Amino acid sequence: MLVNENIIKYFYTREVINIISGSNMPESMKLSLLSDMNRHNALAMVSFAGSGHLGTSFSSSEILTALYHNIMNITPENFQERNRDYFVLSKGHAAPGLYAVLASVGFIPEEQMLTFRKLDGLQGHSDIKTNGIDTNSGSLGMGLSKGKGFCWFLKSRGLQYKVYVLTGDGELQEGQIWEAIQTANAMDLNNLIMIIDHNKMQTDLPLNAILNEANLKTKIEAFGWDVFEIDGHNMDEIIAVFNEIKYRQQKPAAVICNTIKGYGVSFMQHNYPEAKNDLYLWHGKCPDTTEYKKACDEIYDRIMQQLNGKSGININKPFPMLIEPKKKDTVKTVVNGFSDGLVMNLDRNNNIVILDGDLAESCGLNTLRENRCDRFIEVGIAEQDMISMAGALASTGLVPVVNTFTSFLTSRANEQIFNNSTEGRKVVYAGHLAGLVPAKPGKSHQGIRDISLLASIPGIIMIEPSCYREVIDALDFLLHAEVNSGYLRISHAQSKRVVTLPDNYIFKKGEGCILEDGDDLTIISYGPVILGELLLVSEYLKEKDIHARIINLPWLNFISREWFTRNVFPDKPLFCVENHYYLGGQADCILRLLADNYNAYDLEHFHSIGIHGFGQSGDDEEILELYGLSAGRIFKYICQCLEISI
Amino acid sequence: MLVNENIIKYFYTREVINIISGSNMPESMKLSLLSDMNRHNALAMVSFAGSGHLGTSFSSSEILTALYHNIMNITPENFQERNRDYFVLSKGHAAPGLYAVLASVGFIPEEQMLTFRKLDGLQGHSDIKTNGIDTNSGSLGMGLSKGKGFCWFLKSRGLQYKVYVLTGDGELQEGQIWEAIQTANAMDLNNLIMIIDHNKMQTDLPLNAILNEANLKTKIEAFGWDVFEIDGHNMDEIIAVFNEIKYRQQKPAAVICNTIKGYGVSFMQHNYPEAKNDLYLWHGKCPDTTEYKKACDEIYDRIMQQLNGKSGININKPFPMLIEPKKKDTVKTVVNGFSDGLVMNLDRNNNIVILDGDLAESCGLNTLRENRCDRFIEVGIAEQDMISMAGALASTGLVPVVNTFTSFLTSRANEQIFNNSTEGRKVVYAGHLAGLVPAKPGKSHQGIRDISLLASIPGIIMIEPSCYREVIDALDFLLHAEVNSGYLRISHAQSKRVVTLPDNYIFKKGEGCILEDGDDLTIISYGPVILGELLLVSEYLKEKDIHARIINLPWLNFISREWFTRNVFPDKPLFCVENHYYLGGQADCILRLLADNYNAYDLEHFHSIGIHGFGQSGDDEEILELYGLSAGRIFKYICQCLEISI
Repeated sequence: MLVNENIIKYFYTREVINIISGSNMPESMKLSLLSDMNRHNALAMVSFAGSGHLGTSFSSSEILTALYHNIMNITPENFQERNRDYFVLSKGHAAPGLYAVLASVGFIPEEQMLTFRKLDGLQGHSDIKTNGIDTNSGSLGMGLSKGKGFCWFLKSRGLQYKVYVLTGDGELQEGQIWEAIQTANAMDLNNLIMIIDHNKMQTDLPLNAILNEANLKTKIEAFGWDVFEIDGHNMDEIIAVFNEIKYRQQKPAAVICNTIKGYGVSFMQHNYPEAKNDLYLWHGKCPDTTEYKKACDEIYDRIMQQLNGKSGININKPFPMLIEPKKKDTVKTVVNGFSDGLVMNLDRNNNIVILDGDLAESCGLNTLRENRCDRFIEVGIAEQDMISMAGALASTGLVPVVNTFTSFLTSRANEQIFNNSTEGRKVVYAGHLAGLVPAKPGKSHQGIRDISLLASIPGIIMIEPSCYREVIDALDFLLHAEVNSGYLRISHAQSKRVVTLPDNYIFKKGEGCILEDGDDLTIISYGPVILGELLLVSEYLKEKDIHARIINLPWLNFISREWFTRNVFPDKPLFCVENHYYLGGQADCILRLLADNYNAYDLEHFHSIGIHGFGQSGDDEEILELYGLSAGRIFKYICQCLEISI
Repeated sequence: MLVNENIIKYFYTREVINIISGSNMPESMKLSLLSDMNRHNALAMVSFAGSGHLGTSFSSSEILTALYHNIMNITPENFQERNRDYFVLSKGHAAPGLYAVLASVGFIPEEQMLTFRKLDGLQGHSDIKTNGIDTNSGSLGMGLSKGKGFCWFLKSRGLQYKVYVLTGDGELQEGQIWEAIQTANAMDLNNLIMIIDHNKMQTDLPLNAILNEANLKTKIEAFGWDVFEIDGHNMDEIIAVFNEIKYRQQKPAAVICNTIKGYGVSFMQHNYPEAKNDLYLWHGKCPDTTEYKKACDEIYDRIMQQLNGKSGININKPFPMLIEPKKKDTVKTVVNGFSDGLVMNLDRNNNIVILDGDLAESCGLNTLRENRCDRFIEVGIAEQDMISMAGALASTGLVPVVNTFTSFLTSRANEQIFNNSTEGRKVVYAGHLAGLVPAKPGKSHQGIRDISLLASIPGIIMIEPSCYREVIDALDFLLHAEVNSGYLRISHAQSKRVVTLPDNYIFKKGEGCILEDGDDLTIISYGPVILGELLLVSEYLKEKDIHARIINLPWLNFISREWFTRNVFPDKPLFCVENHYYLGGQADCILRLLADNYNAYDLEHFHSIGIHGFGQSGDDEEILELYGLSAGRIFKYICQCLEISI
């Protein structure tokens, strides 16, 4: 455990928070001070974790602080009861902000803030593992529906409590939100309060670059809701509106809080509309040590300025934190290959068009978006709309490449992908953040079900490339050689050993290549992460005088029988290792190949290693170790199967 | 082929249609007459098929007729080109209406109308297999996004054409529609026209029972669209509004067409608001012979009345059709078991609450909805909202049972089901219309990917019961014995042989039962359809002196190893037959069991039969035959594997 007493010095502690809470300052002044302290604590959390979402944690700090310290009836004491208010953080990436507030009211020990995004710690997106949280989030758009569930429960039991749901404004692009809005009034949910953190920024683009004329109030009122609009950083307005609703609510109510993304730290703020056309940098960026100190100082100075003038209370500045600089990839990654490959192919083929779900920056496509806007469709946070649009584009003869995180792509838009496939037209689906790592964002973002989710759609060819060179080949294959739709599974993780493909390797449908040769057993896998581990496993095995044939097989659901027979020993152990749930991935495909094509294959040779259970946040190394996918664990498993002592 | 010249007499033929088109009547009168002829032809199609959607085909008949005969630039001659208008039928169940119109303008030979819902014929929901159709539909909410794709294409190529998308009003409950609406204006799609068939009825309930005060115009205008509202049965208004838009469109435009569901046949009409609280019967009902004749007469009389007064043209009444009465199930079905079981359990357990996605009638829950409205939440056509609501209800300690067709449940709401599972609370998902048959609705409705879609969500227990008795047991198990979430896979097909469970069979987690014993080989399956076929297969095999052990194993993803070892011969052929895509179903689960638990299982014993490719419309028997799941085909496959001559 990383925590010790000194480390708590990085935060405004509960001791300080209680001094403010217990003072005789006006309520709105207290809450403003607490907001800034929570803002700092969110900053410290993200800095210590090395990643996390500051922009939204800052824009919602006043709202969250007011809700928990003044408005809602949810306390550590009544949380296990059902006769209380409910709160749903629908924009789950504001988790640091929420955790800070939960710590400030005593739901979680303050030292837990240091566990943010660490193994067994506070999850990257808000999660019920944490005391005080009622719902899991991370994938946008679900929270209002959850809120409706709580509302229905409270009303059915005659309980006079409220349900508060905090959403983003970009999040409103998710259709599910509008499903939820539409029927709330008819369901008579006059205990539902949707709070919109209207910071007017998407991940990196302004909201209005995607939506145009976003008059939220008119939109939501059209569905029969009562809609209020306030300054989301003004405590008096916040308190007033929620009190108004608390005592006079007749209908589902929405509170549009006009906020500023990154509010409270001058250089992290996006001062929309002045800076309208700038890309916003602080959506998911972690500060360096200098930035961190500067931000701390600013917040502390503001707190002291407020305090000195009115109360005479003095508090210490939290200890400055040293932030480890991020290791930079020295070689070109799979993600680099994807963007470079796209650019090359856009030049070659005029029919290619790219669709993105507000993740261009995260997927390395910002430059492409800027330079090739004639071929780039930014659809916003609306995966279903994006996929069906792509389907129609495909049927006009274009070749659409769809771009988003795979956990959203393959699940939320699954029926739309299926529908496109029934039309027999070609779409290339690029699923980012595939696999168990990077693990810090947690289970909503870990793409470990994707292969199984597409496996029963006839025709889709799935590929996970292992390195820069292979993603270029794979993209070229899917865009030009293949007639069916394709799924490009893209890992964003750093590989322990970089995969180097044999010089004579030709990327060919259904065929892999041998990365290390040996004749005692075969190990098959795909992608940079696991193959990187396997190169180490090979070394460990050699120390035991066991020589493994390590095979890179990028084809996840289509394997050449002829190639397989040529390269895999039929009567020696075979290990399939996958960066996917243990069912429904490449191992099942190999098992099928064996069952369908081999007359007398003895299953005792077949072994597979895959992920069991749900993903979770943590450092990549510790997560791979925990889930049995580190070189050490794979080696151990192989030795166990072969009955070799370690 | 069922078609012969006489049979065409059931329709208003193109000859007649051309007489009207070529006459010198006023345009709106012509179009009105043609609408009625198309209305009749849709009626004949549905009657001949034995199923299909009349209510919506009738409410949209004037709109569709006007679009194809007067407004749109889409003809059989230019359809293969890209410089033309596009039409998307988003409410794909209005397919009979669309097919009638396509036949009337020469896209398809009129005799093709007799192939509706038959093998190799016109699909139950509109499909690009049919000439003149650009997109596949069936699952609601995708059409507007497809329309946006076409719009983007036309604009990117500088083509001055329009894209017309016909949606339902209930369909607007699907979130994807609002994803599409939100960004259309910012994308500058001033060639997009959404036409809403505002017939104010859902499947069987009035729209306002679900939505409350549905002011569509205000809602859509709030998103920056131009919105027009007309009488959707008045030809003058229809022509006027589309001409207005065609020549002066600046923004995405919506045309709200106020219509009457079942319009044009007095006893099929729902005269909302007068009959507001009546359940509507003609959403998906096929008339009997008397009703059919009465409807024909009404339409014919109206046509003649219009004609006689003004043109002197005379036409013959289409030949009356005899409709085969539907066979009624004589024994209680799985669907009966589901509704009876729910009622029993509602009485026993106050925590159970049911959520429905506008399919209560189709799923046998109408009576329950009426009698137990305190425990029944009608969420409308909004699967994602429904599933997340259920998740929240589960976390309050309630036991939600979610009810919809499984093809929508397991794909469209997949990420929401996953999210619920990450919270570890129990939801019972009832997935209706599971399996390949009933096949008439076609591939959007055939639930053959469901098992694979849920298989990689840790913890969900999946069961397909084979008969009334077993569904009662399964429901009881999922509601009371099991702590995890459960998936109840419900077949709506008629079984060739009714499954009778052994008297001493105890429903136990992971264990099945022997329906017929034998010691030459084992055949494992689940559910009423395939087990029904297998009882026949067993007889066929006996004639060859082969004695098969037929096992009913309702557990789709959880199998007791101990039970399996006791009941399946390890060294004799094993056949897994499944009513699911060949990958990702029970057979894969069995293969895994063999791989993980048997030290030396020879794969030559293992055989599996499952569905390859996409589903399609057809009579159940012919579809089972085509996909290799009829008793005859299963028998043949077994003989082939065992090298037995037939």
